[in-house]
Amino acid sequence: MRPQDIIAKKRDGERLNEAEINAFIDGVTDGSWADYQVAALVMAMFLNELDFEEQSLITRAMLYSGEILEFPEIDRPIADKHSTGGVGDKTSLLVAPMAAACGLAVPMISGRGLGHTGGTLDKLESIPGYTVDLPVEDFKRIVKECGFAMSGQTARIAPADKRIYALRDATATVPTIPLIVASIMSKKLAEGLDALVLDVKTGNGAFMKDLDDARRLAGELVRTGEAFNVRTRALITNMGRPLGRYVGNCCEVFECVKIMRGEADGLMEPTTELSSELASHMLVLGGVASSHDEAREKIERALGSGEVFETFRRNIELQNGDPSICDDPEKLLETRLVEAVVTAPRGGYIVEIDTLAVGNVVNEIGGGRLKAEDGIDHAVGLRTECTIGNEVADGETLAVVFCRDETAAKNAVQKLRAAYRIADDPSEASELIIEVVRGDKP
Amino acid sequence: MRPQDIIAKKRDGERLNEAEINAFIDGVTDGSWADYQVAALVMAMFLNELDFEEQSLITRAMLYSGEILEFPEIDRPIADKHSTGGVGDKTSLLVAPMAAACGLAVPMISGRGLGHTGGTLDKLESIPGYTVDLPVEDFKRIVKECGFAMSGQTARIAPADKRIYALRDATATVPTIPLIVASIMSKKLAEGLDALVLDVKTGNGAFMKDLDDARRLAGELVRTGEAFNVRTRALITNMGRPLGRYVGNCCEVFECVKIMRGEADGLMEPTTELSSELASHMLVLGGVASSHDEAREKIERALGSGEVFETFRRNIELQNGDPSICDDPEKLLETRLVEAVVTAPRGGYIVEIDTLAVGNVVNEIGGGRLKAEDGIDHAVGLRTECTIGNEVADGETLAVVFCRDETAAKNAVQKLRAAYRIADDPSEASELIIEVVRGDKP
Repeated sequence: MRPQDIIAKKRDGERLNEAEINAFIDGVTDGSWADYQVAALVMAMFLNELDFEEQSLITRAMLYSGEILEFPEIDRPIADKHSTGGVGDKTSLLVAPMAAACGLAVPMISGRGLGHTGGTLDKLESIPGYTVDLPVEDFKRIVKECGFAMSGQTARIAPADKRIYALRDATATVPTIPLIVASIMSKKLAEGLDALVLDVKTGNGAFMKDLDDARRLAGELVRTGEAFNVRTRALITNMGRPLGRYVGNCCEVFECVKIMRGEADGLMEPTTELSSELASHMLVLGGVASSHDEAREKIERALGSGEVFETFRRNIELQNGDPSICDDPEKLLETRLVEAVVTAPRGGYIVEIDTLAVGNVVNEIGGGRLKAEDGIDHAVGLRTECTIGNEVADGETLAVVFCRDETAAKNAVQKLRAAYRIADDPSEASELIIEVVRGDKP
Repeated sequence: MRPQDIIAKKRDGERLNEAEINAFIDGVTDGSWADYQVAALVMAMFLNELDFEEQSLITRAMLYSGEILEFPEIDRPIADKHSTGGVGDKTSLLVAPMAAACGLAVPMISGRGLGHTGGTLDKLESIPGYTVDLPVEDFKRIVKECGFAMSGQTARIAPADKRIYALRDATATVPTIPLIVASIMSKKLAEGLDALVLDVKTGNGAFMKDLDDARRLAGELVRTGEAFNVRTRALITNMGRPLGRYVGNCCEVFECVKIMRGEADGLMEPTTELSSELASHMLVLGGVASSHDEAREKIERALGSGEVFETFRRNIELQNGDPSICDDPEKLLETRLVEAVVTAPRGGYIVEIDTLAVGNVVNEIGGGRLKAEDGIDHAVGLRTECTIGNEVADGETLAVVFCRDETAAKNAVQKLRAAYRIADDPSEASELIIEVVRGDKP
C-alpha cells in the first residue's frame, strides 16, 4: 500500500480502513513513511476529520506500535490520571502519591512542557538528582515499592505517537480532537491500566478554550478508554486562571511540598481541591473506595496523616532525587533571582486573568520551551498574590515574578500587568470543576 | 513569520497575502521551511483552495525563486509547448523540431515521467549518449544553432517549484489546479517566452479526467500566461486512449523517428496530427505564420522535405546523442526482451481503453517510476495493434508488450487484456482535439 494512495483517500474525504491505518502507523514506526508524507496525511485528517472508528483504529495502532506495560507482580488496581495541560497545573505531583497512599498503583508516564503549558517531567527535574529516564524494569520496581513512579515516554512506549506529535507541533495540526484522543490514549493505554481519570481543561489557559470542544474531547476520551476496557472518567475543569499559587517548575514543586506538609495557604487551595477530586475518582474507578465521599475521606485522611507526604518522599528516594527538599522545601527556590512586583493599575475586583499570557510569560523568561529541543530554566517562575474574585487596591501586589535579569523582569511585569482585568464589580464566581463526564459502563 | 502561523491561516481557510506567500516560497528556496511544513501547507492549499490572486502570487514567487532565461542573441520568436502529461504522449519530440524548422526558437525545459505518465527527458535518454543536463550556456547555444534544445529543470530554474513538486508527488497533492498552474507557469515563464501553447489532456489517461476540470485548468493557464505578457493558448485534447502506436521510452522515440522519416503507419497518425496542431498554434502565436492554415501547410512541407528530421538529427548531435538512430531506428529497440501478446477475449468493437491502466502497466514493468529517485528501464514498453473504433476478432492481437521477464509479462498481459472493453457495436468516435482555449488578448 503506497503512502500516496492512503493520503489521497483521506484527502478525498473517504474513511480509512484498518489495513490503511495500520500501514500508516507501521510506516511511521519503521520510518518507511517520510516526515512530509506523515505531515500531509495529518493535515488531511485535520481538515477532513476522522470518525470514531478511525480514531480508535489509530489509537490501537499507535498503542501497539510499542510496548505495553504489564504488572503481574502488583496486586493493586492500576490507575492513572492525565491532564490536557494548563498553567500552574501541578496536580500530578499530588494525585500520584495520594492515589498510591490509598491503595492504587500509579505507573505515570508524563510529558514535558510545550508552548505555554508546563510538563510534569520538567517540574520533577527541579528536584536535585531526580531522574525521569527510567528503564522499564526500574519503573515497574518503583511502582511496586512505593505505589507510583514517574517517567518520560521511552522510545518503546507508543513510538509512532512520539514522531507524529513532534510533526503536528511543527505543522499547525495539534488542535484536532481525533488526533489528540489517539495521542493521549495510546500512551495511557500502554500503561496497562484498570482505571483512568482525565482532566480536560477549558478556558483561556487551555488548549480547548471552548467548553463545547472540551466536552467533545472529554466524551471521546471516555468512549475510547471504555472501548479498550479501561474504566474511564473525565473532569472538565477551569483553566480560566492559573491553578493554585505558583507557576514555574521549582515553584510548583514547592507548592506541592507545602500542601503535603500541611502548610498550604488559601491561594494553594484549588491545587489541593482539584488533586483530591481527581484522586478520588481514581479510587472509585479503581475499586478501592465504594463511593466518592468515601474516597474523598480516605484522601483527606492520608493527606492529614502524612502518608501522602511519606509516599512522595519514598518516591524521590527511589528515583534518585534529594529527599531533603521534603524537610526544607525552601531549598527548591533559587535565591539569586531578580524579584519583580506586578502591581494593580487600579483598585477593584479581579474579573479576568489572561491565563495564556501568564503561561507565555513564564515560557519567555526561560521556564518553558518553544521547540522540543530547547533547554529550560527550572528556577524562574511567579507567585500570585490574588486571583479572580479578589478585591485589590490601586498599587497592591498582584504577583511577584522571579527572573534571571532586569530586562526579562521588566518585560514580564509589563505583560503580567496587562493580563489582569480589574473592574468595579466582581464577576460571577466560576467553578473549579465544571463537569464530570462518565462513561456508559457501570 | 513562523511557518506554523502561515500553515494555520490556510488551514483555517483564510487568504494568504503577498508577504505570507513570499515567506513560504523563500523558505522553500532557502531551506528554512522543513519538508513536512511545506507538505502540510500544500495539503491545506489543496483542501482549502487558492484564489487567482494567491495562485498568481505563488507563480510569481516561484518564478523569481530562480533564474529567468534571456536570449538576446536570438532574433527568432521564442516559443514553447507544454503538455499536462499522458500515456504515449511523445509530441514534444516532434513539436520542437517542427517549430524550429519553421522559424521559431524553442528552449524546451521538460520533466521526467512520474506516476502513469511518461516524461520527455526519460524518452530522450533512450538515445545513446543524449544528455539532458545542459549548463545554461550550452542550452542557449544549442537553441541558437539548431532552433531548439531539450533540457531538464536545472537547479537554477524555479528551484522552489522543483522542491514543492517532488513533495506534492509523494504526498498526493498533485491534482489541484492552482498549484498545477503555478508549477507549470513558473517553469515556462522562466524560459523567457513570447508564445506558449499548452496541451491540456482530458480523459481516463489524463490527470484531469473530467472535461470541466480540464477546461478550468486550460482557462487558468491561459489567463496566467497573459497576465505575465506571454501570448498563450491551450488545446484540450483526448487522453481517453494511448496517443499513437507505442508506449514506453525507447519505443516512443522509435515512433517519432519513423514519423520524421515518413514511415508512419495508421496507428501513428494521431501522434503526427496532434504534434502538427500544437506546432501550428505556436507558429501563429509566435508570428511566423499569419493563419492556422498557413502554419499547418508550413509544417507539412517541413515534415515532408525532411527539414524537421534534419533539425532533430542536428539536435541529437549537439546534445551528444548518437545520430545513427536516425538512419537505423530499429537500433533503439532492445531485442533481448520477452514479447508477450495481448489477445482479444471476444470479437467486437473496441469501445474503451483504460488508459491509466495501460500507463500503470508500463510503469510496473519498469518503464516509469513510483518515486522520483527510482531508476527506469528505457527498453520496456508496448506496441498497440488497434485502437478505439477498430473491429477485432476473438483472439486477435490487441497489443504486444516488451518485458524483462516472464513473470512481468504474464502480469502485464493480464492487466492489459482487462484494460480493453469490447462491445457488439462501435462507440461514437471521439475527437483528438476537443477544444481550443484562446486568451482575451488578440
